[in-house]
Amino acid sequence: MRSAEIVITGAEILRGHTLDTNAHWIAGRLRGLGIALRGIRTVGDGEDEIRDALKAAATADLVVISGGLGPTIDDRTRNGVAASFDLPLRIDPEARLGIETAYRRRGRPMPEGAEVQALLPEGALPIANPVGIAPGFRMNRGGELIVALPGVPDELRAMFLTGVEPLLGPRREEPEEVFRFYGVPEAEVDGVARRILAPSDLAALSICAEDGAITLRIPSEVVARTPRLATALAEGRVGQALFARRDLSLAEALVDLAASRGETIATAESCTGGGLAWALTSVPGASRVFERGWIVYANEAKIDLLGIAPELIARHGAVSEPVARGLAEAAARRARATVGVGITGIAGPTGGTPDKPAGLVHIAAHRAGATIVRRAVYSGDRERVRRFAIQSALDLARRSLAGLPA
Amino acid sequence: MRSAEIVITGAEILRGHTLDTNAHWIAGRLRGLGIALRGIRTVGDGEDEIRDALKAAATADLVVISGGLGPTIDDRTRNGVAASFDLPLRIDPEARLGIETAYRRRGRPMPEGAEVQALLPEGALPIANPVGIAPGFRMNRGGELIVALPGVPDELRAMFLTGVEPLLGPRREEPEEVFRFYGVPEAEVDGVARRILAPSDLAALSICAEDGAITLRIPSEVVARTPRLATALAEGRVGQALFARRDLSLAEALVDLAASRGETIATAESCTGGGLAWALTSVPGASRVFERGWIVYANEAKIDLLGIAPELIARHGAVSEPVARGLAEAAARRARATVGVGITGIAGPTGGTPDKPAGLVHIAAHRAGATIVRRAVYSGDRERVRRFAIQSALDLARRSLAGLPA
Repeated sequence: MRSAEIVITGAEILRGHTLDTNAHWIAGRLRGLGIALRGIRTVGDGEDEIRDALKAAATADLVVISGGLGPTIDDRTRNGVAASFDLPLRIDPEARLGIETAYRRRGRPMPEGAEVQALLPEGALPIANPVGIAPGFRMNRGGELIVALPGVPDELRAMFLTGVEPLLGPRREEPEEVFRFYGVPEAEVDGVARRILAPSDLAALSICAEDGAITLRIPSEVVARTPRLATALAEGRVGQALFARRDLSLAEALVDLAASRGETIATAESCTGGGLAWALTSVPGASRVFERGWIVYANEAKIDLLGIAPELIARHGAVSEPVARGLAEAAARRARATVGVGITGIAGPTGGTPDKPAGLVHIAAHRAGATIVRRAVYSGDRERVRRFAIQSALDLARRSLAGLPA
Repeated sequence: MRSAEIVITGAEILRGHTLDTNAHWIAGRLRGLGIALRGIRTVGDGEDEIRDALKAAATADLVVISGGLGPTIDDRTRNGVAASFDLPLRIDPEARLGIETAYRRRGRPMPEGAEVQALLPEGALPIANPVGIAPGFRMNRGGELIVALPGVPDELRAMFLTGVEPLLGPRREEPEEVFRFYGVPEAEVDGVARRILAPSDLAALSICAEDGAITLRIPSEVVARTPRLATALAEGRVGQALFARRDLSLAEALVDLAASRGETIATAESCTGGGLAWALTSVPGASRVFERGWIVYANEAKIDLLGIAPELIARHGAVSEPVARGLAEAAARRARATVGVGITGIAGPTGGTPDKPAGLVHIAAHRAGATIVRRAVYSGDRERVRRFAIQSALDLARRSLAGLPA
């Protein structure tokens, strides 16, 4: 099995200003190529740090380094790589031409100081940058492939796909089956799997929870020789929570399900402020099932746009099951959609009371004359409460469509 | 200056299934404490990997390790730490009690196998987990503080704040000034700063671009002794792009500006599907300036909900400046808001034509009888196009409020 290390550079990452997403993205690509990622090292911008990180990574077959290829004084990756292998830096004519061309496409002359981006360690080959300006480079050192790419995610991704992956052989995803659940404790999914799998297969099982959704991954061969597993995971409370048999998000699974049944969804959101519709429309082709939605943040908006009775709000409060029901039913009716989803809650940090604390959310999904509801109190900050409310609403809509209880 | 290293553990991270955000969060906290983060090492779940990563981090004053404290077979952090210092593992009575209590609060008995989470390296002290079950621990080894926390972000954050930060001394943010810009090239901001700063101060300057927004950071003392800098950054095209003098997002800056002027904002979104309103309502207290919004994904929705003339769509297409204008104006009027924002575009990947490619977005902001518009073609995938469209719309609304041109 081939091995890889990733080196991420950038003082802004160590200072907590920037969240690196490049390592995560590269890790996913390497998995698809059957390359085992051994580790990730994140360091600052200094030449010495970069050199040391590369030396520590040196026993891997592939080292991908991200960041520090621009023209400014803190772009020191080329120097760090050169120092690591004791090589001089040379202006690479092809890299220089690429930089000039990138500026020409932008209708600007190549500024003084930009040429430094064409400096490559001796023996390195440039990797063209189809998105930005700074070229990357690659070099072989005794069976080890070193690849340096810019830190800008869009540039790194495009360059990895066009300039690096073709060197790494065909993709060979290890066949695995994926089961995704929402609305059941992780331990319950785990329990079903452990009851059925042979003890020697347990190590191959991976279960993780993220934003309330549970993902179970298991090699296809294990599933094939344990036919009871797939059956048991589709039964009872766990089975009702099973929303995808592939690597789909809740939104993707919901759009797929609605589209396959020719149904449509309309949304009416208060505390999530459009986030449910944003999640639905993140799915390419969402227009098959989603035409419109309302954001009714203020009480007057709930009354004006969706006809919620002022007395209902006065009696139960805006954050209440009756208002969530009213929103879901009005959304479906006014949009002439088969499914309506309503969300109302207190995202916090302020606005809570002992009776109705920050984090309280009421969600309703209406379909075919029936409305199912869910009440939850999410802990954590405003961002987390809203994120969890959206996940729960997507799941409730799915259950409504599937004719399941909340 | 005190130094720190972070060790992140988890095979799911190296396999690209999970994006680690703990290192980023801890990095930000350490910065506020005046502790220099030297590097981050991410490894898998193996005891040997964890031991080796800890040994490599050993010269730092503080090592924070995240993940691998749960009860399952791949939770090996306590073993890795113990192996690193050649210590035995012992059941810690306080940790055990915390686990029992956590289960009791959930109304469940402590299951078999959960006790393993109370195993700590000899001499370590438990860190209580107020959110989940697994306790963390800390230990001193020759002046070095080792802290082990669970990988679940909500648990890690709560435990770091209550169980770790109090040990690290008072917060001492290095005073710095922040200037944030949108709608101007990074090189232009950089150029203004470089023209004015003394050469010896250039190294203290940090400029980075993310999602089209540019952040310039510079120590307060440099700003104080270079009064022309702040003036120059507030002038001309660069000055018009300056949306915050603090670490605020575009949405926060917009909500602040509107609230300070007693104005209100309404939204009408097509391709962003509620994302603009979601961004606005991510700001606590957004209800001061935002009451309602429409998601008009389909043409019929634009016609029904906001009175866009079918002939306008037939003549110009739904993705056009006139329709963006119509959406902005109708949103303001129907919401009785002082500012209306409209977005229409082709998020892709499909739906583009040679004339109107995927990535084309028309945005309009209407206020006080005047409408300003912006047209952009964003490259990248659906997610990026929508993210950039939202950023641009927030900025356009800000400019509209400030009486600036687009």
